[in-house]
Amino acid sequence: MISQAVLEKNRGSSMIRQMFEQGQVLRNKYGADNVYDFSLGNPDLPVSAQLTAALIASAQEGRHGYMNNAGYPELRAMIAGREQQRSGRPVTEQGVVMTVGAAGALNIILKSLCNPGDEVMILKPYFSEYLRYCENCAATAVPVDCDPDNFLPLTSAMEQALSPKTKAIIINNPNNPAGVVYDAAFYEQLAALLSRLKQPVYVISDEPYAQIVYDRTTVPSLLRYFPNGIVAYSWSKSLSIPGERIGYVAVSEDCADYEDLCQALVFCNRSLGFVNAPAIWQQTLLKLGDYQPDLTIYQQRRDLLYSLLTGLGWDCYKPEGAFYLFPRSLEADDQAFAQAAAEEHILLVPGRGFGMPGYVRLAYCVDEAVIHRAEKAFHRLTERYRS
Amino acid sequence: MISQAVLEKNRGSSMIRQMFEQGQVLRNKYGADNVYDFSLGNPDLPVSAQLTAALIASAQEGRHGYMNNAGYPELRAMIAGREQQRSGRPVTEQGVVMTVGAAGALNIILKSLCNPGDEVMILKPYFSEYLRYCENCAATAVPVDCDPDNFLPLTSAMEQALSPKTKAIIINNPNNPAGVVYDAAFYEQLAALLSRLKQPVYVISDEPYAQIVYDRTTVPSLLRYFPNGIVAYSWSKSLSIPGERIGYVAVSEDCADYEDLCQALVFCNRSLGFVNAPAIWQQTLLKLGDYQPDLTIYQQRRDLLYSLLTGLGWDCYKPEGAFYLFPRSLEADDQAFAQAAAEEHILLVPGRGFGMPGYVRLAYCVDEAVIHRAEKAFHRLTERYRS
Repeated sequence: MISQAVLEKNRGSSMIRQMFEQGQVLRNKYGADNVYDFSLGNPDLPVSAQLTAALIASAQEGRHGYMNNAGYPELRAMIAGREQQRSGRPVTEQGVVMTVGAAGALNIILKSLCNPGDEVMILKPYFSEYLRYCENCAATAVPVDCDPDNFLPLTSAMEQALSPKTKAIIINNPNNPAGVVYDAAFYEQLAALLSRLKQPVYVISDEPYAQIVYDRTTVPSLLRYFPNGIVAYSWSKSLSIPGERIGYVAVSEDCADYEDLCQALVFCNRSLGFVNAPAIWQQTLLKLGDYQPDLTIYQQRRDLLYSLLTGLGWDCYKPEGAFYLFPRSLEADDQAFAQAAAEEHILLVPGRGFGMPGYVRLAYCVDEAVIHRAEKAFHRLTERYRS
Repeated sequence: MISQAVLEKNRGSSMIRQMFEQGQVLRNKYGADNVYDFSLGNPDLPVSAQLTAALIASAQEGRHGYMNNAGYPELRAMIAGREQQRSGRPVTEQGVVMTVGAAGALNIILKSLCNPGDEVMILKPYFSEYLRYCENCAATAVPVDCDPDNFLPLTSAMEQALSPKTKAIIINNPNNPAGVVYDAAFYEQLAALLSRLKQPVYVISDEPYAQIVYDRTTVPSLLRYFPNGIVAYSWSKSLSIPGERIGYVAVSEDCADYEDLCQALVFCNRSLGFVNAPAIWQQTLLKLGDYQPDLTIYQQRRDLLYSLLTGLGWDCYKPEGAFYLFPRSLEADDQAFAQAAAEEHILLVPGRGFGMPGYVRLAYCVDEAVIHRAEKAFHRLTERYRS
């Protein structure tokens, strides 16, 4: 008999897997070109020639041994300099730990911070894996409702959600799935709210989409607004390397229990079984330095899909970042709606997986041709609800 | 205030870190050539030209996206074929999950299996991280004493350690730190013991050193002897790539709760934050196929260091595998002995870190020149205890 908790949670999560499997069945039956898969946040942009060159150069150097569990000092120093410049707070090599992606980063952060029963506030709509990450360290996830017009958390809901047990808040900025960018005004408001509490509350930003922003939007520096800020970053989305698992944690010296926290992060990186971030990707990032690929193509796709859906009358927030649309489903039951979409060969994810039933998520990190080909299917799907 | 448990455990583990830091101080003071570092299991063998070529070819292909959380099907099928041939049991792609090293493998296995309070037997001397991995899923590690002459577990101790709560046993084969290879006779004896129990007990082999064996020793196939066997493997040691984090879990179709276990492993790979094993290393391993580098050089080093120490009168088991010696310390207090060794510029790890005070571990994955240079220091250290 395996773990009872894992057995139950795995069965609960199998709805989405069934959707993926249905997608595979559809592709086999109708051909890949006739299935419009908006279900997965897997960047379709190829990696750049610069990245491949840096990766090959690293491979030729042949350094694949253990390093400090926190990562190579020179890479951590480079990132610390960047975070210090961005935030205006003191960030040094000690405050940066290289991780197995943002998922690894969030797990070592939560494990480092939380006693069993501590509460972690998460903002709707939220990435559902946050629930698992909280469970992993026996913390309690406390979801906070948002204003459905702009997906910003309701201040009243945040105030209500705070308790003496609140240890941390996770902010996914830009937000997956809504595409909202939490702006400086929101950070100021939250900082004011937290300053009235007796205990320090750590504010964790999960920022893999920080470089994927539109219309001159910028993601405010978390560390600038929150002394107890903790950045979790991943290059998965910005460099199109989600299968490689490379990211980092960064904290400033202003953070509560700074020395203990830095040591705890390294300890947890090792003891949770990550050990260290993959060596060759650390070396590759050091070689890439400040290089940033051109990500403006995602804006064209956003505009295309957003115009298509709103043109059909869908109720949809226009994202300022990330590569997802999160419209209301055309019937109240988002899962039934996702099934109807699948019948039109459109794959999308029900909003209940993000804590918001009545919505669906479409990932537009797909070729524009897919969006064009899907046009008629979206028309047919919409027609179903006009009768 | 960060997590109380992490704070305490991190402080407890800082003895070894202090040793490493002392090593750095020594190197800075006396020069790297005059410090003899036997503390870390970081293979010094360079990676082979074949591996680098396969890695570069993979980099040129530019595939870095998400795959199934279990890994690429073709790689899993290749490994399944190998495990089936080795064990004679049915092993398919479904029974293989690619992991972030053996540490990742062990964590997803234990999380998949254990309810809080379940017991996991570990065999002295044990890799101390097993204690952390058990804590991660709220399981209780139950250490079992060994015969100090051959480091094989005492049958009486194993019988005593079994309880209705026993969920699993971890066998590190070849063993770090003792270098003992648990042989077929031991596996048969253990299988007989387990067959008398009412509940299935999963037998987990942690096998990163399986290819590093001497004098025609072979590591018996775990899956052959145990229907409920679970293999955790890593290429860290055999390919000299411990910084890259790539390994796998393998189970046969004969395993209790096979379907549930396979799904749970994939679920835990994702939900614990590993997500998947690094893509480029999966591709590289697929290209390498059955390639195995020549590892016989470790035998020369074993012979050299073993002769040196036993020639000085140290009481030391002659390892059949891995790249560690685990002699008795020359005074009862292994930590004081490690300090005395450090004063002679020899870095080694006290046995209490492996559940066996009174011993020390020396890793001989170092250049032979280091062993030769250390000769006089070992003489001086030994002399200290002759007066």
